[in-house]
Amino acid sequence: MSKAERTRQFIIEKTAPVFNAKGYAGTSINDLTEATGLTKGSIYGNFENKDEVALAAFDYNFERVITFIKSKMDEHTSSIDKLLVYPETYRNFLKLPILQTGCPINNTAAESDDTHPLLKNKVANALAFWRDRLENRVLIGIENGEIREDVDVNEFVSVLISLIQGSVIQVKVTGKIAPLNTTMDYLERLIKDLKK
Amino acid sequence: MSKAERTRQFIIEKTAPVFNAKGYAGTSINDLTEATGLTKGSIYGNFENKDEVALAAFDYNFERVITFIKSKMDEHTSSIDKLLVYPETYRNFLKLPILQTGCPINNTAAESDDTHPLLKNKVANALAFWRDRLENRVLIGIENGEIREDVDVNEFVSVLISLIQGSVIQVKVTGKIAPLNTTMDYLERLIKDLKK
Repeated sequence: MSKAERTRQFIIEKTAPVFNAKGYAGTSINDLTEATGLTKGSIYGNFENKDEVALAAFDYNFERVITFIKSKMDEHTSSIDKLLVYPETYRNFLKLPILQTGCPINNTAAESDDTHPLLKNKVANALAFWRDRLENRVLIGIENGEIREDVDVNEFVSVLISLIQGSVIQVKVTGKIAPLNTTMDYLERLIKDLKK
Repeated sequence: MSKAERTRQFIIEKTAPVFNAKGYAGTSINDLTEATGLTKGSIYGNFENKDEVALAAFDYNFERVITFIKSKMDEHTSSIDKLLVYPETYRNFLKLPILQTGCPINNTAAESDDTHPLLKNKVANALAFWRDRLENRVLIGIENGEIREDVDVNEFVSVLISLIQGSVIQVKVTGKIAPLNTTMDYLERLIKDLKK
Protein backbone atom coordinates (compact mmCIF):
# COMPACT_ATOMS: atom_id res chain seq x y z
CA MET A 1 0.00 0.00 0.00
CA SER A 2 1.20 3.48 -0.85
CA LYS A 3 1.18 6.16 1.84
CA ALA A 4 -1.95 7.69 0.29
CA GLU A 5 -3.69 4.33 0.35
CA ARG A 6 -2.71 3.81 3.99
CA THR A 7 -4.12 7.21 4.95
CA ARG A 8 -7.31 6.47 3.06
CA GLN A 9 -7.63 3.14 4.85
CA PHE A 10 -6.94 4.80 8.20
CA ILE A 11 -9.71 7.35 7.59
CA ILE A 12 -12.17 4.63 6.61
CA GLU A 13 -11.39 2.51 9.66
CA LYS A 14 -11.70 5.39 12.09
CA THR A 15 -14.86 6.93 10.64
CA ALA A 16 -16.75 3.70 9.83
CA PRO A 17 -18.09 3.19 13.39
CA VAL A 18 -19.16 6.85 13.52
CA PHE A 19 -21.15 6.61 10.30
CA ASN A 20 -22.79 3.41 11.55
CA ALA A 21 -23.77 5.02 14.85
CA LYS A 22 -24.74 8.51 13.74
CA GLY A 23 -25.92 7.83 10.23
CA TYR A 24 -24.85 9.51 7.05
CA ALA A 25 -26.62 12.82 7.52
CA GLY A 26 -25.89 12.84 11.26
CA THR A 27 -22.13 12.53 10.78
CA SER A 28 -20.50 15.92 10.37
CA ILE A 29 -17.10 16.81 9.06
CA ASN A 30 -16.23 17.63 12.68
CA ASP A 31 -17.01 14.03 13.60
CA LEU A 32 -14.61 12.91 10.88
CA THR A 33 -11.75 15.13 12.02
CA GLU A 34 -12.39 14.10 15.63
CA ALA A 35 -12.47 10.39 14.86
CA THR A 36 -9.27 10.52 12.81
CA GLY A 37 -7.31 13.29 14.49
CA LEU A 38 -6.74 14.64 10.98
CA THR A 39 -7.56 18.06 9.58
CA LYS A 40 -10.45 18.67 7.23
CA GLY A 41 -7.90 19.38 4.48
CA SER A 42 -6.21 16.07 5.02
CA ILE A 43 -9.50 14.17 4.84
CA TYR A 44 -10.59 15.97 1.70
CA GLY A 45 -7.13 15.44 0.23
CA ASN A 46 -7.95 11.73 0.28
CA PHE A 47 -11.67 11.76 -0.45
CA GLU A 48 -13.66 13.96 -2.75
CA ASN A 49 -16.40 14.63 -0.20
CA LYS A 50 -18.23 13.21 2.83
CA ASP A 51 -20.25 11.10 0.44
CA GLU A 52 -17.19 9.20 -0.72
CA VAL A 53 -16.06 8.55 2.86
CA ALA A 54 -19.55 7.32 3.76
CA LEU A 55 -19.65 4.88 0.86
CA ALA A 56 -16.23 3.47 1.71
CA ALA A 57 -17.22 3.29 5.39
CA PHE A 58 -20.32 1.27 4.55
CA ASP A 59 -18.25 -1.23 2.55
CA TYR A 60 -15.82 -1.52 5.43
CA ASN A 61 -18.59 -2.07 8.02
CA PHE A 62 -20.39 -4.62 5.89
CA GLU A 63 -17.16 -6.49 5.09
CA ARG A 64 -16.37 -6.76 8.81
CA VAL A 65 -19.74 -8.35 9.54
CA ILE A 66 -19.39 -10.79 6.63
CA THR A 67 -15.89 -11.77 7.72
CA PHE A 68 -17.02 -12.33 11.29
CA ILE A 69 -19.99 -14.49 10.27
CA LYS A 70 -17.86 -16.45 7.81
CA SER A 71 -15.19 -17.18 10.43
CA LYS A 72 -17.87 -18.45 12.83
CA MET A 73 -19.40 -20.61 10.09
CA ASP A 74 -16.01 -22.09 9.30
CA GLU A 75 -15.98 -23.60 12.79
CA HIS A 76 -18.82 -25.89 11.74
CA THR A 77 -19.27 -28.48 9.00
CA SER A 78 -23.04 -29.07 8.92
CA SER A 79 -25.25 -26.62 7.02
CA ILE A 80 -27.71 -26.40 9.91
CA ASP A 81 -24.92 -25.52 12.35
CA LYS A 82 -23.59 -22.93 9.91
CA LEU A 83 -27.04 -21.34 9.64
CA LEU A 84 -27.35 -21.32 13.44
CA VAL A 85 -24.45 -18.84 13.45
CA TYR A 86 -26.99 -16.13 12.52
CA PRO A 87 -29.25 -16.30 15.59
CA GLU A 88 -26.18 -16.92 17.74
CA THR A 89 -24.43 -13.81 16.38
CA TYR A 90 -27.40 -11.43 16.47
CA ARG A 91 -28.51 -12.62 19.89
CA ASN A 92 -25.21 -11.23 21.15
CA PHE A 93 -24.83 -8.28 18.80
CA LEU A 94 -24.69 -5.69 21.58
CA LYS A 95 -21.54 -7.36 22.88
CA LEU A 96 -19.83 -7.48 19.48
CA PRO A 97 -17.82 -4.37 18.63
CA ILE A 98 -18.65 -4.71 14.92
CA LEU A 99 -22.40 -4.79 15.58
CA GLN A 100 -22.78 -2.72 18.74
CA THR A 101 -24.05 0.32 16.88
CA GLY A 102 -26.38 -1.91 14.86
CA CYS A 103 -26.37 -3.76 11.59
CA PRO A 104 -24.85 -1.60 8.84
CA ILE A 105 -27.58 -2.69 6.42
CA ASN A 106 -30.32 -1.80 8.84
CA ASN A 107 -28.84 1.50 9.94
CA THR A 108 -28.04 2.68 6.48
CA ALA A 109 -31.23 1.36 4.93
CA ALA A 110 -33.67 3.44 6.96
CA GLU A 111 -31.67 6.56 6.36
CA SER A 112 -30.59 6.26 2.76
CA ASP A 113 -33.78 4.99 1.19
CA ASP A 114 -35.40 8.32 0.49
CA THR A 115 -32.36 10.56 0.38
CA HIS A 116 -29.15 9.02 -0.83
CA PRO A 117 -29.26 6.96 -4.04
CA LEU A 118 -25.60 5.84 -4.06
CA LEU A 119 -25.72 4.63 -0.48
CA LYS A 120 -29.13 3.06 -1.08
CA ASN A 121 -27.64 1.19 -4.00
CA LYS A 122 -24.80 -0.12 -1.82
CA VAL A 123 -27.26 -1.34 0.81
CA ALA A 124 -29.41 -2.99 -1.86
CA ASN A 125 -26.34 -4.83 -3.18
CA ALA A 126 -25.36 -5.86 0.34
CA LEU A 127 -28.83 -7.28 0.91
CA ALA A 128 -28.73 -9.12 -2.43
CA PHE A 129 -25.33 -10.55 -1.48
CA TRP A 130 -26.70 -11.71 1.89
CA ARG A 131 -29.75 -13.33 0.24
CA ASP A 132 -27.49 -15.13 -2.27
CA ARG A 133 -25.20 -16.43 0.43
CA LEU A 134 -28.12 -17.72 2.50
CA GLU A 135 -29.81 -19.31 -0.48
CA ASN A 136 -26.61 -21.13 -1.42
CA ARG A 137 -26.13 -22.29 2.12
CA VAL A 138 -29.59 -23.90 2.16
CA LEU A 139 -29.16 -25.38 -1.33
CA ILE A 140 -25.86 -26.97 -0.30
CA GLY A 141 -27.64 -28.45 2.73
CA ILE A 142 -30.33 -29.89 0.45
CA GLU A 143 -27.69 -31.34 -1.87
CA ASN A 144 -25.87 -32.86 1.12
CA GLY A 145 -29.08 -34.56 2.16
CA GLU A 146 -29.00 -32.63 5.42
CA ILE A 147 -31.90 -30.28 4.69
CA ARG A 148 -35.41 -31.25 3.55
CA GLU A 149 -35.99 -30.95 -0.19
CA ASP A 150 -39.45 -29.41 0.27
CA VAL A 151 -38.09 -26.32 2.04
CA ASP A 152 -39.29 -23.08 0.45
CA VAL A 153 -35.81 -21.58 0.15
CA ASN A 154 -36.98 -18.17 -0.93
CA GLU A 155 -39.43 -17.91 1.96
CA PHE A 156 -36.86 -19.11 4.47
CA VAL A 157 -34.34 -16.49 3.31
CA SER A 158 -36.88 -13.63 3.46
CA VAL A 159 -38.12 -14.67 6.89
CA LEU A 160 -34.62 -15.08 8.36
CA ILE A 161 -33.49 -11.64 7.18
CA SER A 162 -36.71 -9.98 8.35
CA LEU A 163 -36.54 -11.60 11.79
CA ILE A 164 -32.96 -10.44 12.28
CA GLN A 165 -33.40 -6.90 10.94
CA GLY A 166 -36.70 -6.38 12.72
CA SER A 167 -35.55 -7.64 16.11
CA VAL A 168 -32.21 -5.83 16.06
CA ILE A 169 -33.93 -2.51 15.47
CA GLN A 170 -36.31 -3.10 18.37
CA VAL A 171 -33.57 -3.78 20.86
CA LYS A 172 -31.52 -0.81 19.63
CA VAL A 173 -34.39 1.51 20.43
CA THR A 174 -35.84 0.01 23.60
CA GLY A 175 -32.62 -1.31 25.12
CA LYS A 176 -34.66 -4.40 26.02
CA ILE A 177 -33.02 -7.64 25.02
CA ALA A 178 -36.00 -9.96 25.71
CA PRO A 179 -37.82 -9.57 22.34
CA LEU A 180 -34.53 -10.19 20.52
CA ASN A 181 -33.89 -13.37 22.48
CA THR A 182 -37.45 -14.56 21.90
CA THR A 183 -37.17 -13.88 18.17
CA MET A 184 -33.77 -15.59 17.93
CA ASP A 185 -35.16 -18.65 19.80
CA TYR A 186 -37.89 -18.77 17.20
CA LEU A 187 -35.39 -18.44 14.35
CA GLU A 188 -33.28 -21.22 15.86
CA ARG A 189 -36.32 -23.51 15.80
CA LEU A 190 -37.03 -22.54 12.17
CA ILE A 191 -33.47 -23.46 11.22
CA LYS A 192 -33.55 -26.74 13.12
CA ASP A 193 -36.87 -27.55 11.40
CA LEU A 194 -35.06 -27.46 8.04
CA LYS A 195 -33.42 -30.72 9.01
CA LYS A 196 -34.37 -33.78 7.01
CA MET B 1 -58.11 25.78 18.55
CA SER B 2 -56.43 29.15 18.90
CA LYS B 3 -54.63 30.64 15.91
CA ALA B 4 -51.27 29.66 17.44
CA GLU B 5 -52.47 26.09 17.88
CA ARG B 6 -53.70 25.98 14.29
CA THR B 7 -50.35 27.21 12.99
CA ARG B 8 -48.54 24.65 15.15
CA GLN B 9 -50.78 21.90 13.82
CA PHE B 10 -50.24 23.13 10.25
CA ILE B 11 -46.47 23.01 10.69
CA ILE B 12 -46.63 19.50 12.13
CA GLU B 13 -48.84 18.18 9.33
CA LYS B 14 -46.70 19.66 6.58
CA THR B 15 -43.31 18.65 8.00
CA ALA B 16 -44.23 15.18 9.30
CA PRO B 17 -43.84 13.44 5.91
CA VAL B 18 -40.51 15.20 5.37
CA PHE B 19 -39.09 14.02 8.72
CA ASN B 20 -40.28 10.49 7.95
CA ALA B 21 -38.63 10.50 4.54
CA LYS B 22 -35.42 12.37 5.26
CA GLY B 23 -34.89 11.50 8.90
CA TYR B 24 -34.26 13.84 11.78
CA ALA B 25 -30.69 14.81 10.95
CA GLY B 26 -31.39 14.84 7.23
CA THR B 27 -34.22 17.36 7.54
CA SER B 28 -32.94 20.92 7.43
CA ILE B 29 -34.62 24.12 8.44
CA ASN B 30 -34.85 24.85 4.70
CA ASP B 31 -36.91 21.69 4.30
CA LEU B 32 -39.25 22.96 7.00
CA THR B 33 -39.74 26.39 5.44
CA GLU B 34 -40.21 24.77 2.01
CA ALA B 35 -42.77 22.24 3.26
CA THR B 36 -44.80 24.87 5.11
CA GLY B 37 -44.27 27.96 2.97
CA LEU B 38 -43.55 29.74 6.26
CA THR B 39 -40.46 31.70 7.26
CA LYS B 40 -37.86 30.37 9.68
CA GLY B 41 -39.01 33.02 12.17
CA SER B 42 -42.58 31.85 11.96
CA ILE B 43 -41.62 28.22 12.55
CA TYR B 44 -39.41 29.09 15.51
CA GLY B 45 -42.13 31.36 16.84
CA ASN B 46 -44.20 28.21 17.28
CA PHE B 47 -41.54 25.68 18.19
CA GLU B 48 -38.45 26.07 20.31
CA ASN B 49 -36.20 24.27 17.84
CA LYS B 50 -36.08 21.62 15.12
CA ASP B 51 -36.03 19.03 17.87
CA GLU B 52 -39.46 20.02 19.09
CA VAL B 53 -40.90 19.91 15.55
CA ALA B 54 -39.37 16.47 15.00
CA LEU B 55 -40.88 15.07 18.19
CA ALA B 56 -44.35 16.41 17.35
CA ALA B 57 -43.98 15.13 13.77
CA PHE B 58 -43.16 11.64 15.02
CA ASP B 59 -46.29 11.62 17.22
CA TYR B 60 -48.36 12.78 14.27
CA ASN B 61 -46.94 10.12 11.92
CA PHE B 62 -47.38 7.34 14.44
CA GLU B 63 -50.92 8.43 15.30
CA ARG B 64 -51.89 8.34 11.63
CA VAL B 65 -50.68 4.76 11.26
CA ILE B 66 -52.51 3.67 14.43
CA THR B 67 -55.73 5.34 13.30
CA PHE B 68 -55.50 3.71 9.89
CA ILE B 69 -54.89 0.24 11.31
CA LYS B 70 -57.66 0.69 13.88
CA SER B 71 -60.19 1.74 11.24
CA LYS B 72 -59.33 -1.33 9.17
CA MET B 73 -59.65 -3.58 12.23
CA ASP B 74 -63.05 -2.09 13.03
CA GLU B 75 -64.32 -3.55 9.75
CA HIS B 76 -63.89 -7.04 11.23
CA THR B 77 -65.27 -8.80 14.27
CA SER B 78 -63.04 -11.87 14.63
CA SER B 79 -59.65 -11.51 16.33
CA ILE B 80 -57.92 -13.47 13.57
CA ASP B 81 -59.38 -11.18 10.90
CA LYS B 82 -58.36 -8.12 12.90
CA LEU B 83 -54.77 -9.45 13.16
CA LEU B 84 -54.75 -10.13 9.43
CA VAL B 85 -55.02 -6.36 8.94
CA TYR B 86 -51.27 -6.17 9.66
CA PRO B 87 -49.96 -8.28 6.76
CA GLU B 88 -52.67 -6.78 4.54
CA THR B 89 -51.61 -3.23 5.41
CA TYR B 90 -47.86 -3.68 5.18
CA ARG B 91 -48.11 -5.74 2.00
CA ASN B 92 -49.49 -2.58 0.41
CA PHE B 93 -47.53 0.02 2.34
CA LEU B 94 -45.93 1.55 -0.74
CA LYS B 95 -49.39 2.47 -2.00
CA LEU B 96 -50.51 4.02 1.31
CA PRO B 97 -49.68 7.72 1.65
CA ILE B 98 -49.13 7.36 5.42
CA LEU B 99 -46.60 4.58 4.98
CA GLN B 100 -45.04 5.36 1.60
CA THR B 101 -41.88 6.78 3.12
CA GLY B 102 -41.71 3.84 5.51
CA CYS B 103 -42.86 2.97 8.99
CA PRO B 104 -42.25 5.88 11.38
CA ILE B 105 -40.99 3.51 14.07
CA ASN B 106 -38.56 1.87 11.72
CA ASN B 107 -37.30 5.07 10.11
CA THR B 108 -36.83 6.90 13.34
CA ALA B 109 -35.44 3.91 15.22
CA ALA B 110 -32.38 3.36 13.08
CA GLU B 111 -31.52 7.02 13.19
CA SER B 112 -32.31 8.02 16.73
CA ASP B 113 -30.89 5.08 18.62
CA ASP B 114 -27.35 6.33 19.00
CA THR B 115 -27.90 10.04 18.64
CA HIS B 116 -31.18 11.41 19.86
CA PRO B 117 -32.41 10.31 23.31
CA LEU B 118 -35.77 12.14 23.27
CA LEU B 119 -36.73 10.76 19.89
CA LYS B 120 -35.41 7.34 20.85
CA ASN B 121 -37.64 7.46 23.90
CA LYS B 122 -40.68 8.27 21.76
CA VAL B 123 -39.96 5.36 19.43
CA ALA B 124 -39.48 3.03 22.40
CA ASN B 125 -42.87 4.11 23.78
CA ALA B 126 -44.48 3.65 20.37
CA LEU B 127 -43.08 0.12 20.16
CA ALA B 128 -44.27 -0.67 23.69
CA PHE B 129 -47.73 0.63 22.76
CA TRP B 130 -47.78 -1.57 19.65
CA ARG B 131 -46.70 -4.64 21.63
CA ASP B 132 -49.43 -3.98 24.22
CA ARG B 133 -52.11 -3.60 21.59
CA LEU B 134 -51.08 -6.81 19.86
CA GLU B 135 -50.86 -8.75 23.09
CA ASN B 136 -54.35 -7.62 24.09
CA ARG B 137 -55.71 -8.51 20.68
CA VAL B 138 -54.41 -12.10 21.04
CA LEU B 139 -55.57 -12.39 24.65
CA ILE B 140 -59.08 -11.28 23.67
CA GLY B 141 -59.05 -13.93 20.94
CA ILE B 142 -58.07 -16.56 23.52
CA GLU B 143 -60.83 -15.41 25.86
CA ASN B 144 -63.34 -15.52 23.00
CA GLY B 145 -62.35 -19.11 22.36
CA GLU B 146 -61.22 -18.13 18.87
CA ILE B 147 -57.46 -18.48 19.44
CA ARG B 148 -55.64 -21.50 20.88
CA GLU B 149 -54.81 -21.24 24.57
CA ASP B 150 -51.32 -22.68 24.12
CA VAL B 151 -50.16 -19.80 21.90
CA ASP B 152 -46.93 -18.19 23.12
CA VAL B 153 -48.29 -14.64 23.05
CA ASN B 154 -44.98 -12.98 23.76
CA GLU B 155 -43.23 -14.89 20.99
CA PHE B 156 -46.02 -14.22 18.53
CA VAL B 157 -45.87 -10.48 19.21
CA SER B 158 -42.07 -10.32 18.85
CA VAL B 159 -42.11 -12.34 15.64
CA LEU B 160 -44.94 -10.33 14.06
CA ILE B 161 -43.24 -7.00 14.74
CA SER B 162 -39.86 -8.28 13.53
CA LEU B 163 -41.31 -9.71 10.32
CA ILE B 164 -43.02 -6.42 9.51
CA GLN B 165 -40.13 -4.13 10.41
CA GLY B 166 -37.54 -6.33 8.76
CA SER B 167 -39.42 -6.80 5.50
CA VAL B 168 -40.48 -3.16 5.15
CA ILE B 169 -36.89 -2.01 5.40
CA GLN B 170 -35.79 -4.48 2.73
CA VAL B 171 -38.33 -3.30 0.19
CA LYS B 172 -37.60 0.35 0.95
CA VAL B 173 -33.98 -0.18 0.00
CA THR B 174 -34.19 -2.64 -2.84
CA GLY B 175 -37.48 -1.48 -4.36
CA LYS B 176 -38.26 -5.19 -4.77
CA ILE B 177 -41.66 -6.13 -3.47
CA ALA B 178 -41.25 -9.95 -3.70
CA PRO B 179 -39.52 -10.53 -0.31
CA LEU B 180 -42.17 -8.40 1.40
CA ASN B 181 -44.98 -10.40 -0.18
CA THR B 182 -43.29 -13.68 0.73
CA THR B 183 -42.82 -12.54 4.33
CA MET B 184 -46.40 -11.29 4.60
CA ASP B 185 -47.69 -14.61 3.20
CA TYR B 186 -45.72 -16.31 5.93
CA LEU B 187 -47.11 -13.95 8.59
CA GLU B 188 -50.63 -14.59 7.33
CA ARG B 189 -50.13 -18.31 7.83
CA LEU B 190 -48.75 -17.70 11.33
CA ILE B 191 -51.86 -15.68 12.21
CA LYS B 192 -54.24 -18.26 10.74
CA ASP B 193 -52.37 -20.95 12.72
CA LEU B 194 -53.41 -19.19 15.92
CA LYS B 195 -56.93 -20.42 15.32
CA LYS B 196 -58.33 -22.95 17.73
